[in-house]
Amino acid sequence: MAKSHNKVEKLNQKAPLIPLTTLCQTGSTPRIVIIGAGFAGLRTVRKLAKAKAEILLIDRNNYHTFIPLLYQVATGFVTPETIAYPVRKYLRSLPNTYFIRAEVLGIDFVAKTIKTENKRIIYDYLVLATGSQAQFLGVDGAPQYSLSMRTLDDAVRLRDRIIGNFERASICLNWERREQLLTFTIVGGGATGVELAGALIELIEGTLAKDYPAIDPKQVKVILIHSGKRLLADFPPHLSEYTARQLRRRGVKIHFQTRVSWVMPGAIELDDGTIIETEAIIWTAGVEANIPQPNDELPTAKKDKVCVHSTLQLLNYPEVYAVGDVAYVKQNGEPLLGIAPEALQQGTTVARNLQRQLQGLPPQPFDYFNKGTAAIIVRNAGVAYLFGKIPLKGFFAWLLWLGIHLYYLPGLANRLTVLGSWIRDYLTKERAIRQFLAIYSSRSKS
Amino acid sequence: MAKSHNKVEKLNQKAPLIPLTTLCQTGSTPRIVIIGAGFAGLRTVRKLAKAKAEILLIDRNNYHTFIPLLYQVATGFVTPETIAYPVRKYLRSLPNTYFIRAEVLGIDFVAKTIKTENKRIIYDYLVLATGSQAQFLGVDGAPQYSLSMRTLDDAVRLRDRIIGNFERASICLNWERREQLLTFTIVGGGATGVELAGALIELIEGTLAKDYPAIDPKQVKVILIHSGKRLLADFPPHLSEYTARQLRRRGVKIHFQTRVSWVMPGAIELDDGTIIETEAIIWTAGVEANIPQPNDELPTAKKDKVCVHSTLQLLNYPEVYAVGDVAYVKQNGEPLLGIAPEALQQGTTVARNLQRQLQGLPPQPFDYFNKGTAAIIVRNAGVAYLFGKIPLKGFFAWLLWLGIHLYYLPGLANRLTVLGSWIRDYLTKERAIRQFLAIYSSRSKS
Repeated sequence: MAKSHNKVEKLNQKAPLIPLTTLCQTGSTPRIVIIGAGFAGLRTVRKLAKAKAEILLIDRNNYHTFIPLLYQVATGFVTPETIAYPVRKYLRSLPNTYFIRAEVLGIDFVAKTIKTENKRIIYDYLVLATGSQAQFLGVDGAPQYSLSMRTLDDAVRLRDRIIGNFERASICLNWERREQLLTFTIVGGGATGVELAGALIELIEGTLAKDYPAIDPKQVKVILIHSGKRLLADFPPHLSEYTARQLRRRGVKIHFQTRVSWVMPGAIELDDGTIIETEAIIWTAGVEANIPQPNDELPTAKKDKVCVHSTLQLLNYPEVYAVGDVAYVKQNGEPLLGIAPEALQQGTTVARNLQRQLQGLPPQPFDYFNKGTAAIIVRNAGVAYLFGKIPLKGFFAWLLWLGIHLYYLPGLANRLTVLGSWIRDYLTKERAIRQFLAIYSSRSKS
Repeated sequence: MAKSHNKVEKLNQKAPLIPLTTLCQTGSTPRIVIIGAGFAGLRTVRKLAKAKAEILLIDRNNYHTFIPLLYQVATGFVTPETIAYPVRKYLRSLPNTYFIRAEVLGIDFVAKTIKTENKRIIYDYLVLATGSQAQFLGVDGAPQYSLSMRTLDDAVRLRDRIIGNFERASICLNWERREQLLTFTIVGGGATGVELAGALIELIEGTLAKDYPAIDPKQVKVILIHSGKRLLADFPPHLSEYTARQLRRRGVKIHFQTRVSWVMPGAIELDDGTIIETEAIIWTAGVEANIPQPNDELPTAKKDKVCVHSTLQLLNYPEVYAVGDVAYVKQNGEPLLGIAPEALQQGTTVARNLQRQLQGLPPQPFDYFNKGTAAIIVRNAGVAYLFGKIPLKGFFAWLLWLGIHLYYLPGLANRLTVLGSWIRDYLTKERAIRQFLAIYSSRSKS
């Protein structure tokens, strides 16, 4: 016992930054725990660099996923590693911060304790930045038989599904089965659904049609199913119309005011009773907050988001903050959209408020400065809505989207790699990645 | 029935390149089937571009794996996609060639038939280019509990094991368990073992030591176990000594004349009875030919390689060729080493011999022109043995290795990406890829 105790001491002495043995007690320095290394979480951590506190970041992955480019991983523009920035590298320059890769199983807000697979962690302050997950709206079969687009795993799994379906179809002699394999259905006409539909139809036309001469391009279908009257509901109506026109011109079939009522393996049923035989169903129809099971029922609003004060503090726990897709935040009476700039600005506010709390000052309310939002449709065509008032469409909106995302992508080498891939794709009209790695397929089978 | 027949006809009409319906019969044009899209298989296909024959390439993957860089995928230099070239892209410029992704289950050399999961394929000529697989030399537990390094899957699985072990160790309070997680054992002192040992120790020193401040670098061990008296037995003895010196200087522990007698989960036993607690056992100790189960026992030599005539034809089947790691070929009384240049040159010979056979001419013997062989050890240190007589070591051998591999890597974009990664790594001493994707870990668990 003495021996092993010695070793733990030796361990702590060598690595004073990671007081593993003291995680289940609080010391003299206040401990701020941030759960989630997404946009909001990482921003909070960075802005707390000079705080007189011990900062602990927890995430289930040891990388930050740049979610806006997930659809580009799924459609073979870039490799998964390019949009996954190593968290530990990010933290190297932050001397008061350490990281634990763990899945958070529950939080006790009264005892101020976090439970992970193998650790119990006490916090003084907590930031919930756990993001969102797919919301299947109670549609039977959707969780089991559709693919979602929220994680890097999801994106690679979808890429393998697309390529794998082409491989299977290319040696299939049954005409109906071929059509089923080559019908890709995207549920949801928000930014993710639109961007994926556009990138997918371009992948098919530019690359796969050439790679698979045995496949009749006319048999390949990309279907977009949207419950609303117009795509990209957060943009002005004429941009929605432009988006639909662009997608339709490329061959995407759009069903408006249509809901999926049932997802089966290899088929979906629409609310009007139509059956679509499709071997790839991609679910982008909604997200909900992804909160580790709390022991206390938190007051939540739409999409399971947690109700917070204007300071982003939980209603009953002033030492706990919720940010990004976890928090239900209104600005001028309208709920926020759940996009990256909101999460980033909330991270900044929370970091400032935590430092104020540490100094005994009252936290200040969050005020969102709306720089705008943008979506990409296809090559040379995008839409943007700047500062909540300036609409933009076409080539410049497309270029703006590329510029913004290149700027925000973490890591210089990643930026160069992505820029290289984009230029290559633009010049050759050909995606770099169409290897069928079959990793995820085998995994989902087992 | 009539309807479905119509559809098949329509299918063939639209896609004359892929006579799927006629795979189980022969037509007027002779059909050459090549199994395996490795170095030998792809070279054969390319050199047959002008043959008056129908060329069918079969591989279980839709990409060519550039095996010499697998160790760089495993140690985070480059992404897996960079060294996996899409076969269909390679074949685009070859009008007489088509490709089927399938696992070959068996070959009937008498009936000239190949059996895959869902097709029966008749050939007139056959090229066996199926490469090699790990040979575990009858060591108990080695197939189950060690990682091999023959496929892209293997390389990513190993990368995830390395990063995953660091993640686990960083939150582990048990000192012995930490040491076990941080002990990496490589079995085999050939080129793969040496290159992996060097790249791994550099990954640890340059990147992981910085990323995991909680881990004492002294606890991390890279052990190389070699049954022979010297590493890289195919090189002159003084280069072997140089190699061992370079690796030892960096901290690799080398056990010479030592065999592994037993592999357990988390530990190995050596033939002298020593137990090494190690949570990563990488098996590079041997390969054997990887031949789809034939119905006829083929005469084989060492490492299960198939005996062939000097023309690379099978002893009893003049219409079947074996190339690369599948064939047992001697040059000047010595068996070939099983390296890429041999496979490439054999591919050229086989393509020429097939064309001679098609013209009614007798095939000609294979004559290997030994340009030499090279291995990389660590940064700025390599060994090369040119033309079987000129030994080279140090910086120039290292540079030569990089140049050769960059030159042979298929795809301009891949070459640029790899060159970029190398330059980045050389300047920053930091590997780009250390995300723990955990794909393979979850898969092997299930």
